[in-house]
Amino acid sequence: MSLHGLSLLAGTSGTTGGKTFRAVNPATNSSLEPAFHEASAAEVNAALDASAVAFADYRARSGAERAKFLETIATEIEALGETLLQRAHAETGLPLARLTGERGRTCGQLRLFAQVAREGSWVDARIDPAMPDRQPLPRADIRRMLVALGPVVVFGSSNFPLAFSVAGGDTASALAAGCTVVVKAHRAHPGTAELVGTAINRAVAACGLPPAVFSMIHGGGATIGIAMVKHPATAAVGFTGSSAAGRALFDAAAARPHPIPVFAEMSSLNPLFILPGAQRERGPTIAQGLLGSFTLGVGQFCTKPGLVFVTHGPDTETFLQKLAEVVRAAPCGTMLTSGIRDAFVENRTKVAGVDGVQLLAAGSTAANDSRTESQPSVATTTAKNFLAHPGLATEAFGPFTLVVIGESDAELAACAAALEGQLTATVHGNTTDLATARPLLAALERIAGRVAINGFPTGVEVCPAMNHGGPYPATTDARFTSVGTAAIFRFARPVCYQSFPDALLPVALQNANPLSLLRLVDGKPTRDPLS
Amino acid sequence: MSLHGLSLLAGTSGTTGGKTFRAVNPATNSSLEPAFHEASAAEVNAALDASAVAFADYRARSGAERAKFLETIATEIEALGETLLQRAHAETGLPLARLTGERGRTCGQLRLFAQVAREGSWVDARIDPAMPDRQPLPRADIRRMLVALGPVVVFGSSNFPLAFSVAGGDTASALAAGCTVVVKAHRAHPGTAELVGTAINRAVAACGLPPAVFSMIHGGGATIGIAMVKHPATAAVGFTGSSAAGRALFDAAAARPHPIPVFAEMSSLNPLFILPGAQRERGPTIAQGLLGSFTLGVGQFCTKPGLVFVTHGPDTETFLQKLAEVVRAAPCGTMLTSGIRDAFVENRTKVAGVDGVQLLAAGSTAANDSRTESQPSVATTTAKNFLAHPGLATEAFGPFTLVVIGESDAELAACAAALEGQLTATVHGNTTDLATARPLLAALERIAGRVAINGFPTGVEVCPAMNHGGPYPATTDARFTSVGTAAIFRFARPVCYQSFPDALLPVALQNANPLSLLRLVDGKPTRDPLS
Repeated sequence: MSLHGLSLLAGTSGTTGGKTFRAVNPATNSSLEPAFHEASAAEVNAALDASAVAFADYRARSGAERAKFLETIATEIEALGETLLQRAHAETGLPLARLTGERGRTCGQLRLFAQVAREGSWVDARIDPAMPDRQPLPRADIRRMLVALGPVVVFGSSNFPLAFSVAGGDTASALAAGCTVVVKAHRAHPGTAELVGTAINRAVAACGLPPAVFSMIHGGGATIGIAMVKHPATAAVGFTGSSAAGRALFDAAAARPHPIPVFAEMSSLNPLFILPGAQRERGPTIAQGLLGSFTLGVGQFCTKPGLVFVTHGPDTETFLQKLAEVVRAAPCGTMLTSGIRDAFVENRTKVAGVDGVQLLAAGSTAANDSRTESQPSVATTTAKNFLAHPGLATEAFGPFTLVVIGESDAELAACAAALEGQLTATVHGNTTDLATARPLLAALERIAGRVAINGFPTGVEVCPAMNHGGPYPATTDARFTSVGTAAIFRFARPVCYQSFPDALLPVALQNANPLSLLRLVDGKPTRDPLS
Repeated sequence: MSLHGLSLLAGTSGTTGGKTFRAVNPATNSSLEPAFHEASAAEVNAALDASAVAFADYRARSGAERAKFLETIATEIEALGETLLQRAHAETGLPLARLTGERGRTCGQLRLFAQVAREGSWVDARIDPAMPDRQPLPRADIRRMLVALGPVVVFGSSNFPLAFSVAGGDTASALAAGCTVVVKAHRAHPGTAELVGTAINRAVAACGLPPAVFSMIHGGGATIGIAMVKHPATAAVGFTGSSAAGRALFDAAAARPHPIPVFAEMSSLNPLFILPGAQRERGPTIAQGLLGSFTLGVGQFCTKPGLVFVTHGPDTETFLQKLAEVVRAAPCGTMLTSGIRDAFVENRTKVAGVDGVQLLAAGSTAANDSRTESQPSVATTTAKNFLAHPGLATEAFGPFTLVVIGESDAELAACAAALEGQLTATVHGNTTDLATARPLLAALERIAGRVAINGFPTGVEVCPAMNHGGPYPATTDARFTSVGTAAIFRFARPVCYQSFPDALLPVALQNANPLSLLRLVDGKPTRDPLS
């Protein structure tokens, strides 16, 4: 399958003539064919204008039609077979096994949102029937449900070239909600993006949908991204990436004449607390698990534990020794891009260079620059020092974690209170530890979107109960998750229908309840039709 | 009951020493006793600092405790009796009958949110039990629910001194969610605010809650309001008022180091379409109903129909004649403040002064300035003219409406497409009209939060299915309603609990389901305990 390197604009291809760029294989530092062509400003505008027109059609499609579309996308992605995996491998350096798993997750996600769209109760249908005889005033028939927000701009992320990219969770949930999508492909894996985008286009055609339900833009730097956010047709934005980029998009969206929501998932240290009983009972096991978690994907996970808090006690040395031992034995890994590698090294150096921070251990193999490698490493400092240097709470996006050693529970509580918003927080404790951990857990619940006990935060389950989000600066909107079925709520708004004849109501709100939705009728949940 | 004129700061009174202001009776243009004292910047900070501390307690209170609190507030407001009604009447010029109804609505709203808090299923509890044997990887136990966002700043509105003010819908829904509240009292009814604030304080004490669960600030101009929005402890903002003020608060919130959501309900023209069959069958009745709707509360309703679109036909003249007749017979009314009256006159003059706009009729009695009166009036223009002058879509907040006459359905469709976001849109049609009205209804659903058929938009039912919101500039966040039980979702965020021992879980997520909540277990709604 040959790549053309052009944007995908409402079923047609973009033009050449602008700047070009190439993907780079980080494992070899060699450029990959073909050249990719940045879209022009006119093409960006045309894609969003067309998306707005297609939205008027697509929003009115049934849940069953949207479900079929999502399932067809999954099938088409699977049909790309090894071609997709090999290209993603070449563009990201991620192992084939990981990419195979990520493809499964991506297709599973599409099928999960298909289920949500087909079942349909997510629209939160509510019906308060008329009360014509109520005193002092009659009540009109009032019904409401969630409807799609409008065209959604999705920014592909670098670290999940499939699951958080062109056909990732943002796209899947937006399409499930009834929104059209315009993706800004990530420059680090444009070929992967083209393959997946082409699979979506095939699904669009197979399902008889308007081509502009989906477009994909190639581009560089902030200019095109900001233009996409500022386009009047854009109704919402999904983004996974750096704080600086996420905040720039948020600011551009907030400054629009008509502001729009931005769901930017940006940065998180994912603090992990290891209480004394857990150190004693499972210290070495936790050290091994921690290594696995902070080096997973060469540390390039949003949920990587970048701060580890331990109360100093009789078992702390054993824990640290084991951690040092496993880190020294850990291999270097190829990072996604040289830019990410450079930023990682810079931030790690910044943290490690603070007074009172000691390197505990680093991998015993040197990083090979020609393979864009980074070495796993771990440093330590005291809680007092952590509190004195807010800069220590800097995300180094790569295989590094900082262990903060407190002399008392009170010191660790002060550290917890000093933390900004996080995607996750984790506590390791035995039964005795946990019996007194309520204040710590309550403090962590205040700053994090997910709190885990005796596990590791990497590995975000895609399920109805997942919350992948958290207070700023973890995300720009703590009220929504970007993973799991509730992610669909980002792209919908309620509409109320007053005194509509039954036939003019959306099917979800009709008396007979033809879709058998769970609805709130007179404030009570039921699947019954209205009598 | 004598008024002290001081802010209410976490159960204590503010100090004197700053600027003072007095309420003015708009029906007499006379100042009312006592002087009210603007809070200092230090007092504003102290109120929000204390609110943050109280939040740590209040957020953990059970739904039953919050419910009891809300119900006690309602009882305490009712216990104010005539004192409250008389003061509100003096400060707003609103008739006692209207204020009595509004008090009923306010207390009803508090009791409705008490029910929501007590029943508890609003937290959208979701449980995905562990699957330890799943291949290739086990699944951890994942549970999530909505938790309170943090201290909420509520701006009282001028036009509903009870129902959208100190103990109005924003406060009720925030307290129900588990948020603490700091109200910025509206300067136009500070005595009403003090009475209601004091009632809330009594309820705080009676329920044994930390005093800083509620504070109320007196102040003037934008400075104090912006300071409240910018305070680091503030987690969300509720506002009802002008576009300029709402946008200023939104901008301040978006520019914070940690941005927060602002729910500003700002401006809406509430377009009303009268189709040919409805003109023929009910023209005069609709004219009478329209007068009632656009002059309700002297036109000072967010949902006042300010634009009326009619297709020109054989019955249009009869409709317009009847409308002119009832408008001429309509009395003047006292507006809430001279500032609102002046702004109304200015905007009405601006609209009426556009080329091609004709005055159709005005009340036959002149407005009496010493009673802050405005005269009801109605003007007409053509659809062509409306499309040529975007300034005609300017909200004149008072008893005025503009009838736009189109020569064809296509012209009216073009008008509908040119409209910005609205709180409501209404269509009057007979069976024949409605049979072909789907495109118009679909267009209106795109721009409005509520679409009504054969009714009038004023009168917003407080019920589970209500949506009082809409695309910008009607509100700053179309995804949420400010009226009805779903308003609680504005002030909550999801938290996920992974692998928690049952006893450490919030009660809402425990296996036994002690609260008998409707929960999503393994994706299926149930009230059953986990086996």
